[in-house]
Amino acid sequence: MNLGILGGGQLGRMLAFAAQPLGIRVTVVDPNPDTPAAVAATHIRAEYEDPEALAQLALSDVVTFEFENVPEPAARRLASLKPVYPSPEALRVAQERFLEKSTFVELGIDTPRFLAIDSLDDARLAFAKLGPMVIKTRRGGYDGKGQCVVRAAGDVDDAYCPFDGIPVIAEELIAFTRELSVLVCRGIDGKSVVYPITQNHHEGGILRLSIAPALALGAELQAQAEEWGKRLADHFGYVGVLALELFDVGGKLLANEMAPRVHNSGHWTIEGARVGQFENHVRAVCGLPLGDPSALGPVAMINCIGAMPDPKAVLAIPDAHYHDYGKGPRAGRKVGHVTVRATDDATLRERIAAIVALLPPPPADED
Amino acid sequence: MNLGILGGGQLGRMLAFAAQPLGIRVTVVDPNPDTPAAVAATHIRAEYEDPEALAQLALSDVVTFEFENVPEPAARRLASLKPVYPSPEALRVAQERFLEKSTFVELGIDTPRFLAIDSLDDARLAFAKLGPMVIKTRRGGYDGKGQCVVRAAGDVDDAYCPFDGIPVIAEELIAFTRELSVLVCRGIDGKSVVYPITQNHHEGGILRLSIAPALALGAELQAQAEEWGKRLADHFGYVGVLALELFDVGGKLLANEMAPRVHNSGHWTIEGARVGQFENHVRAVCGLPLGDPSALGPVAMINCIGAMPDPKAVLAIPDAHYHDYGKGPRAGRKVGHVTVRATDDATLRERIAAIVALLPPPPADED
Repeated sequence: MNLGILGGGQLGRMLAFAAQPLGIRVTVVDPNPDTPAAVAATHIRAEYEDPEALAQLALSDVVTFEFENVPEPAARRLASLKPVYPSPEALRVAQERFLEKSTFVELGIDTPRFLAIDSLDDARLAFAKLGPMVIKTRRGGYDGKGQCVVRAAGDVDDAYCPFDGIPVIAEELIAFTRELSVLVCRGIDGKSVVYPITQNHHEGGILRLSIAPALALGAELQAQAEEWGKRLADHFGYVGVLALELFDVGGKLLANEMAPRVHNSGHWTIEGARVGQFENHVRAVCGLPLGDPSALGPVAMINCIGAMPDPKAVLAIPDAHYHDYGKGPRAGRKVGHVTVRATDDATLRERIAAIVALLPPPPADED
Repeated sequence: MNLGILGGGQLGRMLAFAAQPLGIRVTVVDPNPDTPAAVAATHIRAEYEDPEALAQLALSDVVTFEFENVPEPAARRLASLKPVYPSPEALRVAQERFLEKSTFVELGIDTPRFLAIDSLDDARLAFAKLGPMVIKTRRGGYDGKGQCVVRAAGDVDDAYCPFDGIPVIAEELIAFTRELSVLVCRGIDGKSVVYPITQNHHEGGILRLSIAPALALGAELQAQAEEWGKRLADHFGYVGVLALELFDVGGKLLANEMAPRVHNSGHWTIEGARVGQFENHVRAVCGLPLGDPSALGPVAMINCIGAMPDPKAVLAIPDAHYHDYGKGPRAGRKVGHVTVRATDDATLRERIAAIVALLPPPPADED
């Protein structure tokens, strides 16, 4: 069997790693000559819209994506040639925040209050209604980019200024207790598996640390998150891994955003779950039965931002697993991650601290 | 870092899979145009003795092997250019059964009685001394090839006939209770980790099933096997994974043979141990700290001989993991394996039976 992936970054790389033992050959399209997935896949070096590259990719039996900002014509063209999972409709909704949030509301999934903003007047009105809020571009933001927090009415004008002319939304600012995510993987047969809820820590808009299963999570929240994840996946007739990011606000869940792909907050599943998110995504899109998503025990994932820590020091920590994406160092860039397991939470905490202490200082920003 | 591997079969392939997440790039030399490792490594298509290919391979930081029958000039040539692990001396001993058995004796590792045989007279004399015996070529046998059992004195002449002129040894035939193996991985710093003893089932000289940790194994046998494995590895100043195959004869261990490489009886460690044999071999030869070899629970590995079972049926079995080496079907050929885990031995037995029932009948032999 042959799997085509649009995008050859670290997510495509880890999808290829998961596909290879299954005897599935992978082809990726990516304009980057040193794209991380190239070590484990046939690499077609081309822009994502390149019709010839898309035709070549469609020689695969099935096609998937490693990022959500797939140009719509590319998604449609591929879908006209071969089965494409997840469906272009899920991508379309995930690409546009207003549509995404509206879908949450439509499906009865609680989410922070939000308003579409198309002018300074709209922004002022939004603040009057929502109070402290976050302005976010409707398209293209990731890792905290394209966002701005507004805490006081007097700051609205300055905050909105750089977004003038760009479609944005305003969301009420949530004083959350913690951030969570739930990953659901849905098969072609409509059956889903759900990974244990993950607890996530961001800094500067970038995920730094995930702990799974989320600490001291009541059965009720776990069940609600699972139910929301499945409801979303069923709504789209989704195939593959779908991530739903959540706020835990004092024991009440609010959906923040969805990602129609394997997700950074699920990297712990490679060694930490019976079957990891990458393998389950591959199994799903290739029509194979899904694997058991349960955790093998307490596990954490530490992102390496900017540069990798010394592998000798990391691997000296018991049950630590080193993932180097083969990218050069650069400030703010996700260049790898470390997963660490333990048999109890206290030991896990110690190991997390030991790994975090090994992370190198961020390299000077070249941008 | 760059790792060179002489040989690109399934062992090279799984070594490459283990190296990639560590950010280590792999190059293999193999004459086979479709060699299994090529999906995850730079493939130099050449004979193992090809001086140009060896020079190219030696551009890697360190070189290892995926099979023991490395031509000695190739091993020596590589060792003159770059660090080579395991050492050519370990290869030399493992390549010659008489030398191998003599090393066991020298190190105080119990082994079946054996004699060198260079003529029919020697063979007759051996039977008189050993009784029922196995004639084995000193070099080049694997998977039960190059072996012949002699049960009666009257059969010695016929049995020896095809070996006339070939250096062989005779070993007393052991009525063993079961076959075991121990895998030790030794680092450049001389520290070793040892995997739980594995119980192996062969048919027609080919490994069919491994169960780990070996069932109902006394602490004494585990300790003795570990000690022997370490003693051997220390003797050679070994770096990497070394496998020692053992007979359990009513609670007494005898060493059968060693393999200076990652080993089929250790494939269960990929999903079944905290850190698998392939990753630990890569870590060892690359000078990285070794990982925890302990088992995550009861686990089994079923070899797929001749042809692969249907992945849909296999992956429908809970906690089953499918490994397709990307080789075409052929009678007697190892084309893949399935690993399955469980939380108790009874469930493991059920899952093994379910997988074995899915194995296709052997394809017609083309040879």
